[in-house]
Amino acid sequence: MADFALWTRTVQAGTEAALARALPAASLEPKRLHEAMRYVALGGGKRVRPMLVFAAAEAVGADNALTEAAAAAVELIHVYSLTHDDLPCMDNDDLRRGKPTCHVQYDETTALLVGDALQSAAFEMLAEAGAGAKLIALLARAAGSRGMCGGQAVDIASTGRQLNLAELEFMHIHKTGALIRAAVLLGALSGGALEDGRRAALEHFARCVGLAFQVMDDVLDAEADTATLGKTAGKDAAQGKATYLTLMSIKEARAYARELVADALTAIAPFGELGRRLGEISRFIVERQF
Amino acid sequence: MADFALWTRTVQAGTEAALARALPAASLEPKRLHEAMRYVALGGGKRVRPMLVFAAAEAVGADNALTEAAAAAVELIHVYSLTHDDLPCMDNDDLRRGKPTCHVQYDETTALLVGDALQSAAFEMLAEAGAGAKLIALLARAAGSRGMCGGQAVDIASTGRQLNLAELEFMHIHKTGALIRAAVLLGALSGGALEDGRRAALEHFARCVGLAFQVMDDVLDAEADTATLGKTAGKDAAQGKATYLTLMSIKEARAYARELVADALTAIAPFGELGRRLGEISRFIVERQF
Repeated sequence: MADFALWTRTVQAGTEAALARALPAASLEPKRLHEAMRYVALGGGKRVRPMLVFAAAEAVGADNALTEAAAAAVELIHVYSLTHDDLPCMDNDDLRRGKPTCHVQYDETTALLVGDALQSAAFEMLAEAGAGAKLIALLARAAGSRGMCGGQAVDIASTGRQLNLAELEFMHIHKTGALIRAAVLLGALSGGALEDGRRAALEHFARCVGLAFQVMDDVLDAEADTATLGKTAGKDAAQGKATYLTLMSIKEARAYARELVADALTAIAPFGELGRRLGEISRFIVERQF
Repeated sequence: MADFALWTRTVQAGTEAALARALPAASLEPKRLHEAMRYVALGGGKRVRPMLVFAAAEAVGADNALTEAAAAAVELIHVYSLTHDDLPCMDNDDLRRGKPTCHVQYDETTALLVGDALQSAAFEMLAEAGAGAKLIALLARAAGSRGMCGGQAVDIASTGRQLNLAELEFMHIHKTGALIRAAVLLGALSGGALEDGRRAALEHFARCVGLAFQVMDDVLDAEADTATLGKTAGKDAAQGKATYLTLMSIKEARAYARELVADALTAIAPFGELGRRLGEISRFIVERQF
């Protein structure tokens, strides 16, 4: 895993550099907006989605400028969603990635516009790298009402209400799963067209990894402390959110996450050694402490 | 102008139909989000930006599926910005297009997600119509921090502060001008590549029309009543917003708008009869009552 740790740091540094280059300088008008965009997008985050983009690209033997742009674009969509998610009318959170959230550090109006502008920046970045219409449509669908935004709407509507496993997974497949799927597919498609069987294998991998990621998020929210997480711990229970832990014990949830990862690993077996990074990421997801 | 009135109704009906087809049905989950997206996007609006898309396409002899998708995409960006603009942390308005604003009719969370999802839908629509990366990047830049979002940030930051004409126009060139410029360029580019001189002429036209539109918005906000406008009249002054009327009289503002339109008409003279609709729109903008 030493090699994997080095690889993740390379992806993190590369993503940071790509975002730092792509986002307007804080010296450009409107300065406060640009400063706030850089505040939320730079200097933090596990960069799991960029890791998935690069690992999926590696699985098909691709690594080019489009891969890098796709990684940064997916992360921009993720960061915009966190910024809006933290707003008082959503989760009303004041800590993110170990720093005050955008509306706490700046103000609500700025946080709203930061999210809006980061979403535009994601599509600008992908388009400027010369991505084809199919890739851009894929990211837009993943971000929209039948993807991430739709999942957030279900999440908010479900607060304080008991969900069954099917309902909970519908929510997560949209809220976090859609963008994780987009990350894997964009990475692979940055190498060109994808044969149907390989695409289906990657989609199954992404679905399992997305759910495992969410199961572990719920476990960590219950187990870890705020300092380790870099965001407020114990928040889900306090807000009456539906989580895996309303349906199973922590022990069962960890076992379920491991099962999902085993399923993910089976899905990518046909990629052989080229799929190694994807496998490492899926194991990292169940072993992470933050 | 009878002919122009008929043409505008055709564009309005076509835009309405394209948006109705493109937006997910309210029967699809999450239903409330989809219902709210349709609530804000359908059944209202002058559709000035779609008019500009179609008129600019006509000026270069284009009219195809991409023109229609560009018109709908630009309108989706506009509608998303109105939805977020009306939120309590922005302009806090309760009336838009003669109906309660989204956060009044639904709630703040829904209005936030509606705007977010409509922005994604705009890029999805343009990409699904097969638009090239250059067109998509153009729309993304116009929507982002160096375009519309940037203008809104300056607008909010300027509230309660006296701006000079240069500062006021910097704000408007971003806040409304960027999307109007994108509408004109996307319309023209839907017919294929554009020779530099023609592109510069259209950009100058768009700049003048965008400013004239804003000058008249300020005049109408001061002169018209709420019922005619379909949005709260007299709001700018009440909120201490910088407007043209803090710098000039209503009479001077109307004269300035007419000057801008004359300038716009000169810019498109080389397009001859093909530029007729563009000319008609620019005249409509200074003569409108709402």
